[in-house]
Amino acid sequence: MNQISPSTASHAAWAGALLRPRSVALVGISDDPSKTAGRPLHFLRRAGFAHTVYPVNPRRETVQGEKAYASLAALPERPDHIFILTGAELALDALEECGRLGVPVATILAGGFSEAGQKGIDNQRRLDDIRARYDTRILGPSSIGLANLHHDLVLTANAAFAEPDLPRGGLFVGSHSGSLIGAMASRGKARGIGFAGLVSVGVESDLSIGEICAATLDDPAVTGYLLFLESINHAQSLRTFALEAARRGKPVAAYKLGRTAEAAELTVSHTGALAGADDVADIFLRECGIARPESFDGLLEISALLERIPAENRGRPARVGVVTTTGGGAAMAVDQIALRGVEVVEPSPQTRARLAQAGVDAQSGRIVDLTLAGTRYEIMKASLDILLDAPEFDLVLATVGSSARFNPDLAVMPIIDAAREHSKPLAAYIVPDAPEAIRALAGAGVPVFGTPEICGDAIASAFRRRAPRLGTPHPVDLPGFDRMLDEAEAYALMGSAGISHAPYAVLEPGADVPELDFAYPVVAKVLHKDIAHKSDAGGVVLNIADSAELSRAMDRIRKAVAAYRPGTVVDRVLVQPMTRGMGEVLVGIRRDPQAGPLVMVAAGGVATEIYRDSSLRLAPVDVATAHEMIGEVRACQLLMGFRGAPEGDIDALAQTIVALSELAVRDDPAVIEAEINPLLVLPRGKGVVAVDGLVRIAQGERP
Amino acid sequence: MNQISPSTASHAAWAGALLRPRSVALVGISDDPSKTAGRPLHFLRRAGFAHTVYPVNPRRETVQGEKAYASLAALPERPDHIFILTGAELALDALEECGRLGVPVATILAGGFSEAGQKGIDNQRRLDDIRARYDTRILGPSSIGLANLHHDLVLTANAAFAEPDLPRGGLFVGSHSGSLIGAMASRGKARGIGFAGLVSVGVESDLSIGEICAATLDDPAVTGYLLFLESINHAQSLRTFALEAARRGKPVAAYKLGRTAEAAELTVSHTGALAGADDVADIFLRECGIARPESFDGLLEISALLERIPAENRGRPARVGVVTTTGGGAAMAVDQIALRGVEVVEPSPQTRARLAQAGVDAQSGRIVDLTLAGTRYEIMKASLDILLDAPEFDLVLATVGSSARFNPDLAVMPIIDAAREHSKPLAAYIVPDAPEAIRALAGAGVPVFGTPEICGDAIASAFRRRAPRLGTPHPVDLPGFDRMLDEAEAYALMGSAGISHAPYAVLEPGADVPELDFAYPVVAKVLHKDIAHKSDAGGVVLNIADSAELSRAMDRIRKAVAAYRPGTVVDRVLVQPMTRGMGEVLVGIRRDPQAGPLVMVAAGGVATEIYRDSSLRLAPVDVATAHEMIGEVRACQLLMGFRGAPEGDIDALAQTIVALSELAVRDDPAVIEAEINPLLVLPRGKGVVAVDGLVRIAQGERP
Repeated sequence: MNQISPSTASHAAWAGALLRPRSVALVGISDDPSKTAGRPLHFLRRAGFAHTVYPVNPRRETVQGEKAYASLAALPERPDHIFILTGAELALDALEECGRLGVPVATILAGGFSEAGQKGIDNQRRLDDIRARYDTRILGPSSIGLANLHHDLVLTANAAFAEPDLPRGGLFVGSHSGSLIGAMASRGKARGIGFAGLVSVGVESDLSIGEICAATLDDPAVTGYLLFLESINHAQSLRTFALEAARRGKPVAAYKLGRTAEAAELTVSHTGALAGADDVADIFLRECGIARPESFDGLLEISALLERIPAENRGRPARVGVVTTTGGGAAMAVDQIALRGVEVVEPSPQTRARLAQAGVDAQSGRIVDLTLAGTRYEIMKASLDILLDAPEFDLVLATVGSSARFNPDLAVMPIIDAAREHSKPLAAYIVPDAPEAIRALAGAGVPVFGTPEICGDAIASAFRRRAPRLGTPHPVDLPGFDRMLDEAEAYALMGSAGISHAPYAVLEPGADVPELDFAYPVVAKVLHKDIAHKSDAGGVVLNIADSAELSRAMDRIRKAVAAYRPGTVVDRVLVQPMTRGMGEVLVGIRRDPQAGPLVMVAAGGVATEIYRDSSLRLAPVDVATAHEMIGEVRACQLLMGFRGAPEGDIDALAQTIVALSELAVRDDPAVIEAEINPLLVLPRGKGVVAVDGLVRIAQGERP
Repeated sequence: MNQISPSTASHAAWAGALLRPRSVALVGISDDPSKTAGRPLHFLRRAGFAHTVYPVNPRRETVQGEKAYASLAALPERPDHIFILTGAELALDALEECGRLGVPVATILAGGFSEAGQKGIDNQRRLDDIRARYDTRILGPSSIGLANLHHDLVLTANAAFAEPDLPRGGLFVGSHSGSLIGAMASRGKARGIGFAGLVSVGVESDLSIGEICAATLDDPAVTGYLLFLESINHAQSLRTFALEAARRGKPVAAYKLGRTAEAAELTVSHTGALAGADDVADIFLRECGIARPESFDGLLEISALLERIPAENRGRPARVGVVTTTGGGAAMAVDQIALRGVEVVEPSPQTRARLAQAGVDAQSGRIVDLTLAGTRYEIMKASLDILLDAPEFDLVLATVGSSARFNPDLAVMPIIDAAREHSKPLAAYIVPDAPEAIRALAGAGVPVFGTPEICGDAIASAFRRRAPRLGTPHPVDLPGFDRMLDEAEAYALMGSAGISHAPYAVLEPGADVPELDFAYPVVAKVLHKDIAHKSDAGGVVLNIADSAELSRAMDRIRKAVAAYRPGTVVDRVLVQPMTRGMGEVLVGIRRDPQAGPLVMVAAGGVATEIYRDSSLRLAPVDVATAHEMIGEVRACQLLMGFRGAPEGDIDALAQTIVALSELAVRDDPAVIEAEINPLLVLPRGKGVVAVDGLVRIAQGERP
């Protein structure tokens, strides 16, 4: 992974060559401007790219009326940026030549690399080899190119860039999908949203989406970022970029595919299975301070909102006030906002009094419904002014009915004026089809939504955004081998981290049962490195009343395990007192290869799997975050005085979450994953107690 | 409630007068065509309404250049339909006059009735009185009017109908919201969707949305229905209409507000609290055969799909095949479809072979990704033909990238041709902003979606639609008083319905404990008509080992209940053996004032409230439906061999659901609500057993 520090990124030679090249070569350019391999020359010329373009095509004298060169070596100078439009094998030849010539950046359109069978793997290997030998940075493969609109650079084969008058603006787009940079350009144009640049990053074999975005951080023309992600690759460079963007106040939003991918990883613990790839991506983006709208149009429409809702002071529930000329339209928006957990609150008595004073008939109820009177400038403007001043709202939403279609200027003017005069965020939802009103509002920088669903999505996603968690990332660089600790070893490790576990004794089956330090009844469990799932192996006996029963139980365990896994000799059994808690919780950690160390809290018992009732964070967490996690697990309501029941020791639970999360970043031993299931929560003041533990540690040598 | 039978509805005088009047009077019409009260005359004239219009305004000689009449009585004939544009009080005067003159239909624009405080209640009372005395049918109050586009009738004050060229088509819209009929017209127009009529039904004080729609069932110009509902009023006329629409193959879809309303009703049972108003509406609409998309645009875009997906043969999971020119766009659609529970499946080996034969490079994986080759007519057409013939798909989705924007005709032609040649549904998702392509497809009757979310919503909602449940509705007409049965009475009633309960004895505290018919340990529970929540009152003692303990337990119960509720004398205690099941389930019934009898199955224990893990149906249900309900309760997985655990007696559970659901429609006694919580499910073959029961019955006289 070629990771660069963002402070030097924008000064790096590759960054200028990528986005502001002073000379471009098009390798394999076609004479037909309507063909994929012909479009980049056509688009560059039409965009009025002011710098040098070299068509390279060994089979033609001219291409699209311009002189064609036979090879890169035949060019009169070393270009800054080569766009290679050929198939995979010729592309590798061209890349090798780029390396030899010292070209700073090459973009590769072709697919057919690591994703494409044996041939592809061979191609990938050759690419990696070229990359190791030369300094040329690579965009792609599978990149459809990029555009830097402030530089008149439309260096792409995406047909969507045939669009005349691509809207310039402050948004910079990084996308795993090449076709979607075109869809974003056209959909943005329809909404009056302008772009600084759009980059198709392809498979990120070299330059990653995080590095590329970081390279534009100091560009004053870039005011915010939209990412289209298929997965989280190069997570740490993405995180580094996001933290720097937050520091500069440039908001980042991401749409991520794969909410439904059944990509639960195969690990021995629930912590792995419960936290699927998308859950991990979700918490990773959140802790990077990146907003994640659920809808594609929400990605486009959230940017103006993010500029107005600082991520820094989030952490309490957001409250929205709604003013409308159409009750039905506002009700749809309220439904969609509330559905996503953002509260729509009614005006306070003070605010109502101010509205009445201003001659506004606000009706009663949650919404300020101006009805038809709201189509008059002074009524809408006065209402917005009063609501924007009212302390009970974090955001005001103006819902506009048919006047937005028939008198767009009139309908949007009070909103544009009010937005300019107040610092509190003001957004608009336009109920009818009213493209002019939407463009006018967006053009004035007012967040504007065309459907109640996008309205709810964008508002909720914007308020869900948090300030990024600072601090050093914890790279996951584990040795090749690992080992499961047995339960006694697991308790010892947890105990060293300050986690309470039930007392235990380790006995030898067949030998005399000694006096125990704790009272009967007890539970007996097999202790053997090869038996992780003890119950499945018949290795657990509950509710043992006395020493004679214990002796028989150990015998039964020995036989059951030997039957379950022939050849296994049970020479140790762990004995614990039977303990009851007010509730059972699962706490787990694991190191994700991309996102890094994670900690999870989940409902214990059957709810763990049936309801996937859990909360996830990057590890380690502090006590406040641990409490937040507990609040996100619905079953934990039962421990918090639900329906008048006694309270569990939530503080001790939070301490244990913190302690286990810290194990996730400790070395020696490096814990790959660990899980306490169940952790029994005792009544308030009595603590918590682990009664089982799975721990897998890394070890450098084959065990 | 004026309920009409749909077979006569279209022949009823009011139906013609409402939608195809041959003369219209506008009471209170303003001279200013831009004012609310001036618009209807302006709109009627601009639409070219061919029949007579009488402006009525006592204060003017002319209105908008036409002769104005001083009163309804002064008109040369009795008009078919009066649109009253005045405030509430003058509107009532005009309505009284309509009644006297025998006018068939009056539409009232004004609000200010039952929703508007004491003054409003007085107005409502006067309106009800006029309605009782005359035959005039009323649309509204709070109706913004209606349009019948095939009749050039634009009889509305909604400013959105200033729209030129309102698109005519087959959809008939009924809406609780007046402003949203305008939003639907404009949004429909932008998508190439045409309407037959749009009616703002207001508060349905007389004519209900169901009656009005039913009146158009025999109109060949009407091919389907879209409803915008704020709540479910006049449920039985809505149901009657929906069943008749289904019989005629005219699909009905509804958008319903209020998903987030915290309107859980206050009842003694969980069955009430768990099944909130929106849950009831949801199951009611589903059992009426009405599709319920989640998004407003989904309501508009679902209609073409519903015409192609018959509700009759639903019941197994739907499978969608996807063909695309843009991998990223298709992936978004797949995500959104799968998120809503519809499976996207890959082509079978046979289908792949046919694609290869046709020269189509389908790539591997779930999606047929044609990449840029798919922009060629013959490649896309051949792929669609093969997928539409393949038995593994119930619907084929074509995803179109930037070619939809730049070559709309070319991009949509293969889709339009394939849709015409195959009966299997074919839908399109257009990734870029491409209004022309969308209008072309919609115009050709192809279901087409502009965002992945609407695509997923419409497809899932269309497949979720079921054939309506036939049979007589069970009107809820309960007497004024009710009574809780005690637990012993509840068991007796359930026993009469064939529901097994645990054996029990009723003992008298203080008296000698007799020999029991069942073994210890037992549980003792207070039996008293005033104590519904026995545990809260200290009225339950578990795990009683013998008769001496039982005697003491009864004593404890007597004292605890007396302390909990002073003056309560406990003279009966119910004793049962302690029984353990493999799992606990809640089964409940209640009669909803609108939807009628309902049956619910839910997870028992704490999961009932924490996870709201439940399934709801209109009662009664058959065995197949009971099994379906069990399948919808996630906790019931634990009874169905989850992770290799033994199976519970699911068949007995289903039988009990059926039996209880039949109690919901039984008279004598009429059960208002009943709940078994918990019902213990025993191992397969061992049955189920109720160990508690709440029943509330109706009784005609004050108890």
